[in-house]
Amino acid sequence: MFFHEPELQYEVTVEEPDPHFAKLLQQAIGGQEGEMRVAMQYMFQAWALPEEYEGYRKLLMETATEELGHIEMLATAVTKNLRGSSKQMSEDAENVASTAAAMTGQNPRQFLSAGQSAMPVDSNGVPFTGGYVVASGNLAGDLYANVMAEGTGRTLATRLWEYTDDPGMKDMLSYLIARDTMHQNQWLAALDSLEDPLPVPASFPQEEENQDVNYAFMSTRRGQQPDPEAPWTQGTAPDGTGEFSYLAEQPGDGDGVPPAPDPSTYSVPEDE
Amino acid sequence: MFFHEPELQYEVTVEEPDPHFAKLLQQAIGGQEGEMRVAMQYMFQAWALPEEYEGYRKLLMETATEELGHIEMLATAVTKNLRGSSKQMSEDAENVASTAAAMTGQNPRQFLSAGQSAMPVDSNGVPFTGGYVVASGNLAGDLYANVMAEGTGRTLATRLWEYTDDPGMKDMLSYLIARDTMHQNQWLAALDSLEDPLPVPASFPQEEENQDVNYAFMSTRRGQQPDPEAPWTQGTAPDGTGEFSYLAEQPGDGDGVPPAPDPSTYSVPEDE
Amino acid sequence: MFFHEPELQYEVTVEEPDPHFAKLLQQAIGGQEGEMRVAMQYMFQAWALPEEYEGYRKLLMETATEELGHIEMLATAVTKNLRGSSKQMSEDAENVASTAAAMTGQNPRQFLSAGQSAMPVDSNGVPFTGGYVVASGNLAGDLYANVMAEGTGRTLATRLWEYTDDPGMKDMLSYLIARDTMHQNQWLAALDSLEDPLPVPASFPQEEENQDVNYAFMSTRRGQQPDPEAPWTQGTAPDGTGEFSYLAEQPGDGDGVPPAPDPSTYSVPEDE
Amino acid sequence: MFFHEPELQYEVTVEEPDPHFAKLLQQAIGGQEGEMRVAMQYMFQAWALPEEYEGYRKLLMETATEELGHIEMLATAVTKNLRGSSKQMSEDAENVASTAAAMTGQNPRQFLSAGQSAMPVDSNGVPFTGGYVVASGNLAGDLYANVMAEGTGRTLATRLWEYTDDPGMKDMLSYLIARDTMHQNQWLAALDSLEDPLPVPASFPQEEENQDVNYAFMSTRRGQQPDPEAPWTQGTAPDGTGEFSYLAEQPGDGDGVPPAPDPSTYSVPEDE
Amino acid sequence: MFFHEPELQYEVTVEEPDPHFAKLLQQAIGGQEGEMRVAMQYMFQAWALPEEYEGYRKLLMETATEELGHIEMLATAVTKNLRGSSKQMSEDAENVASTAAAMTGQNPRQFLSAGQSAMPVDSNGVPFTGGYVVASGNLAGDLYANVMAEGTGRTLATRLWEYTDDPGMKDMLSYLIARDTMHQNQWLAALDSLEDPLPVPASFPQEEENQDVNYAFMSTRRGQQPDPEAPWTQGTAPDGTGEFSYLAEQPGDGDGVPPAPDPSTYSVPEDE
Amino acid sequence: MFFHEPELQYEVTVEEPDPHFAKLLQQAIGGQEGEMRVAMQYMFQAWALPEEYEGYRKLLMETATEELGHIEMLATAVTKNLRGSSKQMSEDAENVASTAAAMTGQNPRQFLSAGQSAMPVDSNGVPFTGGYVVASGNLAGDLYANVMAEGTGRTLATRLWEYTDDPGMKDMLSYLIARDTMHQNQWLAALDSLEDPLPVPASFPQEEENQDVNYAFMSTRRGQQPDPEAPWTQGTAPDGTGEFSYLAEQPGDGDGVPPAPDPSTYSVPEDE
Repeated sequence: MFFHEPELQYEVTVEEPDPHFAKLLQQAIGGQEGEMRVAMQYMFQAWALPEEYEGYRKLLMETATEELGHIEMLATAVTKNLRGSSKQMSEDAENVASTAAAMTGQNPRQFLSAGQSAMPVDSNGVPFTGGYVVASGNLAGDLYANVMAEGTGRTLATRLWEYTDDPGMKDMLSYLIARDTMHQNQWLAALDSLEDPLPVPASFPQEEENQDVNYAFMSTRRGQQPDPEAPWTQGTAPDGTGEFSYLAEQPGDGDGVPPAPDPSTYSVPEDE
Repeated sequence: MFFHEPELQYEVTVEEPDPHFAKLLQQAIGGQEGEMRVAMQYMFQAWALPEEYEGYRKLLMETATEELGHIEMLATAVTKNLRGSSKQMSEDAENVASTAAAMTGQNPRQFLSAGQSAMPVDSNGVPFTGGYVVASGNLAGDLYANVMAEGTGRTLATRLWEYTDDPGMKDMLSYLIARDTMHQNQWLAALDSLEDPLPVPASFPQEEENQDVNYAFMSTRRGQQPDPEAPWTQGTAPDGTGEFSYLAEQPGDGDGVPPAPDPSTYSVPEDE
Repeated sequence: MFFHEPELQYEVTVEEPDPHFAKLLQQAIGGQEGEMRVAMQYMFQAWALPEEYEGYRKLLMETATEELGHIEMLATAVTKNLRGSSKQMSEDAENVASTAAAMTGQNPRQFLSAGQSAMPVDSNGVPFTGGYVVASGNLAGDLYANVMAEGTGRTLATRLWEYTDDPGMKDMLSYLIARDTMHQNQWLAALDSLEDPLPVPASFPQEEENQDVNYAFMSTRRGQQPDPEAPWTQGTAPDGTGEFSYLAEQPGDGDGVPPAPDPSTYSVPEDE
Repeated sequence: MFFHEPELQYEVTVEEPDPHFAKLLQQAIGGQEGEMRVAMQYMFQAWALPEEYEGYRKLLMETATEELGHIEMLATAVTKNLRGSSKQMSEDAENVASTAAAMTGQNPRQFLSAGQSAMPVDSNGVPFTGGYVVASGNLAGDLYANVMAEGTGRTLATRLWEYTDDPGMKDMLSYLIARDTMHQNQWLAALDSLEDPLPVPASFPQEEENQDVNYAFMSTRRGQQPDPEAPWTQGTAPDGTGEFSYLAEQPGDGDGVPPAPDPSTYSVPEDE
Repeated sequence: MFFHEPELQYEVTVEEPDPHFAKLLQQAIGGQEGEMRVAMQYMFQAWALPEEYEGYRKLLMETATEELGHIEMLATAVTKNLRGSSKQMSEDAENVASTAAAMTGQNPRQFLSAGQSAMPVDSNGVPFTGGYVVASGNLAGDLYANVMAEGTGRTLATRLWEYTDDPGMKDMLSYLIARDTMHQNQWLAALDSLEDPLPVPASFPQEEENQDVNYAFMSTRRGQQPDPEAPWTQGTAPDGTGEFSYLAEQPGDGDGVPPAPDPSTYSVPEDE
Repeated sequence: MFFHEPELQYEVTVEEPDPHFAKLLQQAIGGQEGEMRVAMQYMFQAWALPEEYEGYRKLLMETATEELGHIEMLATAVTKNLRGSSKQMSEDAENVASTAAAMTGQNPRQFLSAGQSAMPVDSNGVPFTGGYVVASGNLAGDLYANVMAEGTGRTLATRLWEYTDDPGMKDMLSYLIARDTMHQNQWLAALDSLEDPLPVPASFPQEEENQDVNYAFMSTRRGQQPDPEAPWTQGTAPDGTGEFSYLAEQPGDGDGVPPAPDPSTYSVPEDE
């Protein structure tokens, strides 16, 4: 179960409110790389783990809880950027057109739907979706999903950092970037603590997979190309089990033409 | 530009058509872990790479092209499972109720919308969405996204393999599982070929991030807990730059209460 | 069955067309608080009601029909704001950059997809979704959903009213705001006409619910806090059945660790 | 900021695992009436409130935090219903068809995507969306949204309660139904504590709305009907400000035909 | 503006209620081929048409209005199939497992969310989306969209007709299939009444398009294939303006490698 | 199976990069009228066709393959417009506000999520969805869907052409407009090659449809109107089978009131 204190995890100040930046910050709340995604992702991953993975379950759950606090920080940042700005819609508008123009350059729903506050949407106003959450039940697969989530999340935060000059916003983002550094590293450390997790899922009996193509790079160029002698066409594969090879052409077999559908589907295009 | 031959990349046969399995296979076409996702993901990643990453651009584009062929194989598998089965809706039904009952246990849209064929949807009938695609412009971040996609994709394929007894389907899945083994390995090999890609994005000046919390595991338990002395609370972090430490408590700072919204939002709840 | 007359329910004039305002108006058509939602919501609610609720069924259906006319008024307002304006894209552009810039400040799809007309989307261009519609089959629950829909819809309309100076638009919004006043009131009057509708659903035997926590405010603060002596921690509850009380701490029971998943899910992360 | 303890808020036991019920429970997690919605809704509402609404801000935030714990309880219930059942897919299947048939009667993604665990989706497998969240910035409007959310949520829980015989599940649902009773009552008590919140938003100057139709029930029947003398056509309106009246016909004004679109839209359908 | 009468456009009776068929019928309400789509599509198309297309505007609006009545008929059919059936969940269940199994074979939300009634979703429970609506502002393009909508809609209705034995349902579907016949024909007649509508948009100056490839079928096979001498590689094109020709190979030009992104995007994958 | 060459199908150059135009171009990639839609649509249609439609299967598959190359051209155009422009965010900004304002006028995710490159979304940033794809299994229905897709797609391309002055972009769009001309014509030629495809699906026994209303235009005006004597109220219908007639009024039959729902749904709104 969860608890909450009114204090933020880290201070959020805005020197010069900027409703445009409030729109950009939404990506870090409800976007594909945002904090709602990682909070939900780590929770659902944790809830799937049985007793023997207790340490990982705690790791996931504690970080999920921290991410909830990051949503809170970012929502605060959005609201502080929307309110009290001299660039606000109603104050600097000389006529209807310029008002609406200013507003549409922002996220109009932050005003129209939310009264100048944050929303569970991304920087284009597209709602957060549970479809972003990856929780496969296989811990190694999930940890790679988490490395990716923190990597793209940190990239997002650095891009936001680059485009604000506000000292308060820079400071908050510097904190969130640091936490993403930690979280990337902790998921990688957790992966390192597993024995032979590759290829995911490692528990599948590898002899059941097709042995002709499981370590072969297959060229899909129109004509045959020479082996590029790249790290993915020769040498031992990272899973330590196979040797990379090179296939200059896709095998090809069968033409895939299906049987006719049932007459009851009325798929025959012509009058009979 | 693209080319196509009528031959499949690998043969697809179905001994005993099973419309229920046709529903499950949709997850591998239009699902979060499906082939539409990786085909689109690798393409958009490739199209973002400038000249200096030419080798990676080719790697991504050739594999994207292969994945298009996997969508084709799976669509063929779906159609062959839907057509000509003795378990088909219209043939084994004695009355309306049992017909409809059988159908609703399947994916009804494969019949109603598609005339017994495959669709760009997942195993619950939810349409494929571009929101599944991760293409950040940062190659290291993208490669981790690809390791994850192939890891969860291979897990999906093994689960499908486990639940079919059809020799043709087992054979096709054994082929796809093998390709996922290769693809996981090739993305990891590509990651290994980069110099110091961590933390993603590695080009951000790390001195700009908050130095107090960038390698600290932060407990979010209600009361202070002792250091679990886990691989993520001590030792050198996987990025080789920092040393893990342990914080028994979140820092906490400020209460996040925002300024009042503009009167023009009519957010005051009472008549004044 | 439905009928239609070419006349609008209320006149829609635009003195000074403004394509930016046309973007904002979309929220009132296809947004979460928009007219498509209430039209569909009231219809589906009505169609679920059996004979004994005939009066409510008529009430819902007549208002649903009115809301269809409001979509029509708003679509007219959008089109009139998009066409013939001196602020239009093609006329005031000096070069390609300023044209495109002006356009992207608007909703580009109103031009690109719809030829300067209205669309079933919100002010960020996100399509209307059936997921906004609430029709539970329980009349009391549905009437509260309707009070909410009209309350947030009226709030939206007042915000649009605040940000336009066009007399025609102000007049149309003044009419729609008035209708929302009526509709809020009529749903509340309908709620008042029910006997003991609380708690929704009132027909559930209340003795079957857990009697320890059904009127207790439960604090989720980290440490125990004193009873705030608020209207929700003491006194008789609005449903007239229970007395509010205060729990300074969540009960807490069991740790939720699940059994291990089936081996056929290949969730074991390591090679065995 | 948030904290978490491994204990559940209330015990979750399952006597007889049932993967079908695990599908139904998803509605209470990621559905329109589910706990993800209320948790997010109460948070975003709280984060928008300025200092003068501190008491309401705390009320919302504490309840949001409790709802996070309800997601956790339900996810635990889902996983316990999916694992270890004699009705599980792999164990009771005699052949591929019956296996897949059993699976498709369940939510296939709980197996294929999540390894027998819970997901952020509804009972049809449709992902949770931020579009369910209502947070208007106007406290009265938001409180009505919360009454509705708890009313439809409680209705959902009673329907789930009705369709399970498992004593553990009945007990958990009895607890959640009780909490929904409390939450409905607390939002109504909070509404009662406001002075003149109607019509929402009450701070809009009511003289600005059209005075002819703001308390008139408008019939949309094809022919004129007599006043039904219903509680919404006569008497004082619930907001205490107006008197209901009856209009037997919609006013009607103007035909809404728009100007022609710009030639640059190429909307002219014929070759000129 | 709209009007409504309580009478249905055509009688809806159900002899033997069947909750499974109620799930299938949802496709005709909220699906891609459903009545919500055409009702909204014809309305938005009509609202975009200026005065000179008054006849078409009326045609579209009158048919849109009829489609609203079809939603009503189908919603009635759904509810009548869900209620009072001996196959209903609560009555024929001997234990929890078989109850839930029966329910999950149906659309669980029709029970859980809607109390045995219709919803604005498709046969997989996916909500209706405004993204289905096509209204381009170009009348010829829109009329082809309408022919398609009625063609796929009629196909859906025939498949539903095929799979029910209920005389009432067969009769209702026979009526709806007939209306789809009329509507297909009326849109084709409207297309025929236009002068030279091809290629859509016909008002674009055709000399501005690339003259080398505007009537050439371009083979995308890997190797050059002979001209198939098909109706689309030779003869006069249906628009009456060009002559079909055959290109055995795609032209091909340039490699599409983009410039490097701005350093502020931190897209460089390595530490520098 | 598919193949790919690094060459583009047609050259893509940008003289003056314009990040605003990059936003508009997204509609042609991931929008309702975009190239992702047609590529996927033609593929899924092709994969459903049995042997007797081999010529159509090839036609569909070859064009699908070409469309993949159009996505590639457009993605290249987007990236070239985003990178190296003097109008780019970071270079021409004097302070944070103007930077963010410039960015929000663009698609912020092209920068924040994709590092100045293309995405599988439309011009409002809404992700591509499989819900746009129409593949009914009935070839005639599908060919009309394709005529529509190319018609609305060509309309989109002409609108983009109208709003750019960049010679490179005009040239690329001139090429794509030409291909859309060809594709519209080829689908119409394919329709012409079918015998009696109307009404879709033509294989349904037309005597089973209601014979009273299958060629009657039904007025939905409030009062009876005279026959407009339009091409859709008189004369032979385009399918060559029926004669149009005119009904001045909808038939009307039955009131659609459903039976009461099961008590286990707790739909009774009052305490009993």
